[in-house]
Amino acid sequence: MNRTLRHTSALTILAASMLAASAFAAPPGNDPAALGQIRNAALKSDWALERLADMTDLIGPRLSGSAGAAAAVTQVADAMRKLGATVTLQPVKVPHWVRGAETASLVEYAGRPAGVTQRVVLTALGGSGATPQAGLIAPVIVVRDFEELKARAAEVKGRIVLFDVAFDQQMAERGQAGTAYGQAVIYRGVGTRLAAQMGAAAVLVRSAGGADYRLPHTGASGLQDGARIPAAAVSAEDAMLMTRLAARGPLSMQLILTPQVLPDADSFNVIADFPGTDKADEIVIVSGHLDSWDLGTGANDDATGVVTAMAVIDTLKKLDFRPRRTIRMIAWMNEENGGRGGATYLEANKANAAKHIAAIESDEGSGRVFGMRTSVGNEAMKHFAPLKAALLPMQAGALQRADALGMGDLHGLEAAGVPSFAPLIDESTYFNYHHTPADTFDKVKPEDLRRHVAVMAVTTWYLANMEQPIGRANVPPRQ
Amino acid sequence: MNRTLRHTSALTILAASMLAASAFAAPPGNDPAALGQIRNAALKSDWALERLADMTDLIGPRLSGSAGAAAAVTQVADAMRKLGATVTLQPVKVPHWVRGAETASLVEYAGRPAGVTQRVVLTALGGSGATPQAGLIAPVIVVRDFEELKARAAEVKGRIVLFDVAFDQQMAERGQAGTAYGQAVIYRGVGTRLAAQMGAAAVLVRSAGGADYRLPHTGASGLQDGARIPAAAVSAEDAMLMTRLAARGPLSMQLILTPQVLPDADSFNVIADFPGTDKADEIVIVSGHLDSWDLGTGANDDATGVVTAMAVIDTLKKLDFRPRRTIRMIAWMNEENGGRGGATYLEANKANAAKHIAAIESDEGSGRVFGMRTSVGNEAMKHFAPLKAALLPMQAGALQRADALGMGDLHGLEAAGVPSFAPLIDESTYFNYHHTPADTFDKVKPEDLRRHVAVMAVTTWYLANMEQPIGRANVPPRQ
Ligand SMILES: [Zn+2]
Ligand SMILES: [Zn+2]
Repeated sequence: MNRTLRHTSALTILAASMLAASAFAAPPGNDPAALGQIRNAALKSDWALERLADMTDLIGPRLSGSAGAAAAVTQVADAMRKLGATVTLQPVKVPHWVRGAETASLVEYAGRPAGVTQRVVLTALGGSGATPQAGLIAPVIVVRDFEELKARAAEVKGRIVLFDVAFDQQMAERGQAGTAYGQAVIYRGVGTRLAAQMGAAAVLVRSAGGADYRLPHTGASGLQDGARIPAAAVSAEDAMLMTRLAARGPLSMQLILTPQVLPDADSFNVIADFPGTDKADEIVIVSGHLDSWDLGTGANDDATGVVTAMAVIDTLKKLDFRPRRTIRMIAWMNEENGGRGGATYLEANKANAAKHIAAIESDEGSGRVFGMRTSVGNEAMKHFAPLKAALLPMQAGALQRADALGMGDLHGLEAAGVPSFAPLIDESTYFNYHHTPADTFDKVKPEDLRRHVAVMAVTTWYLANMEQPIGRANVPPRQ
Repeated sequence: MNRTLRHTSALTILAASMLAASAFAAPPGNDPAALGQIRNAALKSDWALERLADMTDLIGPRLSGSAGAAAAVTQVADAMRKLGATVTLQPVKVPHWVRGAETASLVEYAGRPAGVTQRVVLTALGGSGATPQAGLIAPVIVVRDFEELKARAAEVKGRIVLFDVAFDQQMAERGQAGTAYGQAVIYRGVGTRLAAQMGAAAVLVRSAGGADYRLPHTGASGLQDGARIPAAAVSAEDAMLMTRLAARGPLSMQLILTPQVLPDADSFNVIADFPGTDKADEIVIVSGHLDSWDLGTGANDDATGVVTAMAVIDTLKKLDFRPRRTIRMIAWMNEENGGRGGATYLEANKANAAKHIAAIESDEGSGRVFGMRTSVGNEAMKHFAPLKAALLPMQAGALQRADALGMGDLHGLEAAGVPSFAPLIDESTYFNYHHTPADTFDKVKPEDLRRHVAVMAVTTWYLANMEQPIGRANVPPRQ
């Protein structure tokens, strides 16, 4: 796979030299007028919205290994070729997990009238094991955190464990949605594994999300081959119901979950190069991830990231602007349940990491963008005043620095020294829809998508033309 | 069934005379201090909330004919007997419709990649006919209103008709939720029947509801024996998707809906009399409906109405207050898909209509109550100043008059001259949850439920003790 990328780079340089003699105008560089032209062009184009409709309406869900994911690879590659970009499909072996039946009901509890059972709304977590086809029936224990699970360790074996941990919606609305998500989602990863180790018959988590419409939120479990048990997310309402019923006395559930773990499948990262001029061997990545969960159509997560990255090149192409460095649009495969796309690219580009000047990924939905965040070094921050000035007229002039962004597909590159960038996005409602059936096209506001493209395009262009040293990311070692 | 009610009345009078010599205090009448005591007692009691938990957590869905509906009859009757009320189960024959499988996908459309289909989230409407077990595949036509359907009448035969009519959420938020609902729901009633008459293979309506969480909202279709076709509500998101895809070219759907229409089932209105003193033969009804749709646990629609009506008697009982007129708590059966409970009661009480002084029903959810509305005559309005004064300290002093309320279970009584009352409830979010899986216990705010009971209890008491003539309702003839 390393070979594939080396081949790409050779092609890129060839294409660059051919295009140098083409109809493209001389690069205007980071002149404020040029930055303003890019911003304004993006703010009046619906090219990204059209691509979003193509991806979500014509294809829909794009879980790794699915027909939808394969169709999305073809669709994005075709669209980028139409823009004249040099497209490479980088092979990626991906996990292939397929959802099956998923139903559950509470069949015993104190006060249950004869003949009555209560349905529980849930959805299997990625990587979940399966129950028998006819389901299993087991007593339920409800815990609020890891401590309570450990205190009740003797009860776990053969039982269904529910982690009833609420997503902190108020924290999300105060602008700390990512932190709120992190607090809840640990049970989906670590919690499922722990319950499996302790011999649970199945493990349930309360959905890590902020709305109250009885929607289960899926996502990757922490389960691996050899230690898979049935694992599902229940809706917030059902978690609360189970907690109330468990407080009345013993509670039993019938659970049917029949997902399948199939052999790894062949898929691809879609890599589309828009070649640079005098620094064509230097690369600025702009990206989103192409795979999505299977319940919704992945409009927020992350068709928005992919189409805004694609639209960066459309915007420059329409203006006839050529960057000094090569702009590499990547639609990553398998961010959601394996991270194989990012890992494969990193592996193939280890030797070439120094030529990766910066990498952008958008993967936090389609809310209003109000700037960028980055892991460039403190010294480099002063060089970004012209970028901020260009984004200020659209109220997107914020630039926040952190030692590491840790974006899913970029964290390996970042650890290898490549400074990361990501749009600063209002996420206050993102986790209402995240990983649910309701992550659909209509959730994306056209004006916000245009703004998103503008911020991504101006930033990408700026990075691809910077004279000043941007330096390397310096990710602190993990504690 | 007439016999049953006559029997009840005899028992009521007997019970009243027995209780007259009991431990009850002399009736304090409509003295402002008494009204205030009732209000304050209700505002600090969670008896209704406990009943709500029993009904929704222990039983859950209560569609007519289901085990849940039968359990609810028993549960309410038991609770009312515990309060010392005289309980009668009035037999009601109810429709028995049972949901089956319900899946759909878009299998042909312009731009569809090979191997890809798009799932459509939908739920069968009450009374829907069934497709073959393996489903049907048919072209879809999308229309925006009846006019467009008529204009395209030649295309309807053998096709699936979708009425893509949006619920007006902004109107709902402006305080006219009922009107917004009425505008949308006509397609679920009249539209389904019309499509069936025109030979449609199936009929779909966009969900009549205000949220955007890909929830389908069920409800009664207008379909009857002999003219049933498969009928379902699609989520707002899916209706919009289908409209967008239909704009790209021909669209076909595979639809599996396998509900069953079973023979009518035996069920009951639960009637619990709290006997009056000197006017025990005069009746004031306070009520809600016991049946619910099958997707959620019917907390808003209408466990709230039933438990607040029940709690009126609990409140008076705790205060040891005895009304002059008999207060009759009714938990109506089959409001949602037939109205058989209301019709049965009306039929049994035709001769006794004049003794029904007033009737209250709460059936608009659990939002904040800010007063009452009524169909008493204009002249009687002046007699309600003490009631308004008693509710004013809790910001619920509004009293709105209309010529007719037309509440589901009361409209027959109202047409027969019985003035209707209903709480004035903030419905701005009611239709987000209405008839969906998300109508659950957690949607009811304990404080709002206490307020709801207070308004119902003070109003019921006031009506049961009024000296002044309340007169009769004078429903205008239908245009
Ligand atoms: Zn994502
Ligand atoms: Zn209702």
